[in-house]
Amino acid sequence: MNTQESGFFTEENSADVVIARNAGTEDARLKEVMEVLTRHLHAAVKEIEPTQEEWFKAIMFLTDTGHMCNEWRQEYILLSDVLGVSMLVDAINNRKPSGASESTVLGPFHVDGAPELPLGSNICLDQKGEPMLVRGRILDTDGNPIAGAKIDVWQANDEGFYDVQQKGIQPDFNLRGVFRSDAEGGYWFRGVKPKFYPIPDDGPVGKLLGALGRHPYRPAHLHYIISADGFETLTTHIFDPDDPYIASDAVFGVKESLMAEFVPVDDPARIDAAGFDGPFLEVAHDFVLARP
Amino acid sequence: MNTQESGFFTEENSADVVIARNAGTEDARLKEVMEVLTRHLHAAVKEIEPTQEEWFKAIMFLTDTGHMCNEWRQEYILLSDVLGVSMLVDAINNRKPSGASESTVLGPFHVDGAPELPLGSNICLDQKGEPMLVRGRILDTDGNPIAGAKIDVWQANDEGFYDVQQKGIQPDFNLRGVFRSDAEGGYWFRGVKPKFYPIPDDGPVGKLLGALGRHPYRPAHLHYIISADGFETLTTHIFDPDDPYIASDAVFGVKESLMAEFVPVDDPARIDAAGFDGPFLEVAHDFVLARP
Repeated sequence: MNTQESGFFTEENSADVVIARNAGTEDARLKEVMEVLTRHLHAAVKEIEPTQEEWFKAIMFLTDTGHMCNEWRQEYILLSDVLGVSMLVDAINNRKPSGASESTVLGPFHVDGAPELPLGSNICLDQKGEPMLVRGRILDTDGNPIAGAKIDVWQANDEGFYDVQQKGIQPDFNLRGVFRSDAEGGYWFRGVKPKFYPIPDDGPVGKLLGALGRHPYRPAHLHYIISADGFETLTTHIFDPDDPYIASDAVFGVKESLMAEFVPVDDPARIDAAGFDGPFLEVAHDFVLARP
Repeated sequence: MNTQESGFFTEENSADVVIARNAGTEDARLKEVMEVLTRHLHAAVKEIEPTQEEWFKAIMFLTDTGHMCNEWRQEYILLSDVLGVSMLVDAINNRKPSGASESTVLGPFHVDGAPELPLGSNICLDQKGEPMLVRGRILDTDGNPIAGAKIDVWQANDEGFYDVQQKGIQPDFNLRGVFRSDAEGGYWFRGVKPKFYPIPDDGPVGKLLGALGRHPYRPAHLHYIISADGFETLTTHIFDPDDPYIASDAVFGVKESLMAEFVPVDDPARIDAAGFDGPFLEVAHDFVLARP
């Protein structure tokens, strides 16, 4: 009996027969992955007991989701996002020691090659929106400052759009910048308060969200990738706790520890010190990097 | 708290948070299906612990499988087939009372409107292949004959191709026909011995089969859809037990009860009675229809 012979298929033994058929898989990891997937897939089908029409609807949903994907649009990543799978994979790959800052999803809007800027620079190039000063420190898990950490930040504008979504409307590299922490681990830069925005919802995944009674919005946030020699790179956001969608992020990216208050400041001395010409919002948030 | 608020996501509570987020789903069946899928999907991801690279490989596999689908090719059905899901859905939807013939998958090559032919007709229109007489009876589960049952048959030729795959090479409706059982429930027709054939394996599913050390072949078979008033319609195949791929059908369609011997006949009287001019194969198989 060769490895492809595995007994005839019945409703009862279905997963075992399929797994046995894959016994000749050379790649041990692929074999393991397919065994787990086959077991859960067959268990789910047995629980659901789909009709032929339901099964075909699922086939067509998967087909349509594939057809929606092109060079600019990745509908399968959106599906992974709204099912919580992207955040689960992020969590599994970024388990942090106690005290280290938590990660969240990278998202599709990071751009390589954003300009490296002096601390305090204003990354809002078109003066649109509510001025904001963001500041904090980069620390290790013992509370010691990390000098020279690279802080790559990007954010949506006051209408919820990234520069790459509004070429020709926003300046290139609007609301993006790379900073280095100072000798005390400190960082600060200026921008504008970001706004919540919807994930693209004109495809099969948007239709699914609608059928599930869900909205497509992500609460307002700032993106960070923070890296330093000898530490694990941290990819995360900070969130506005007062955002209307803070408790219902369409992609499940919010964590309690990633909240940052947006505090109004109208003291003229502080306005002057921050380099603004009127009231602004101050967002203070420290990040703690883990050693590998 | 509205139905979209469901606590923040952690690795531990991930499936519960996603399921709670779907609490506003109006369609009760969709809600149930999504709950089962979410639970199994998150459990599988937690068992597998994919790296980000592995997760992205899965995203790209699903994307490529979608892109392979067009008007003529349904790669997601192929994926369902080789994972045993199509047969499992078939089994769930066609549980038969004891004694009734078992079902198997319809497959993609059925054509509506095949000609209705007198019993004994030869459905092989191009005289290519090894002549075959197929005969048997259509019965109820008490062994009584069912007269006037509609028997829709189709098969691949001696090279493993259906007419629709070889337009212009095979005559239209080659190796297809619709027959009616006689007063004793009997049916018979002539054809040629079918050959094993591969499922389309030039796409992502074929590549997966290769990585799993599996071949793409289906063992030789004849297709049937048998219907009669007052009975459940039976969609099934009969198989050649001596086929090299009988124990390793790429789509898991084979069942023990669907084997039919292909018996060589060289007795001149029987050759003459069957309407052939040389030795032929005789395939005898009865079908038992279930009442709803």
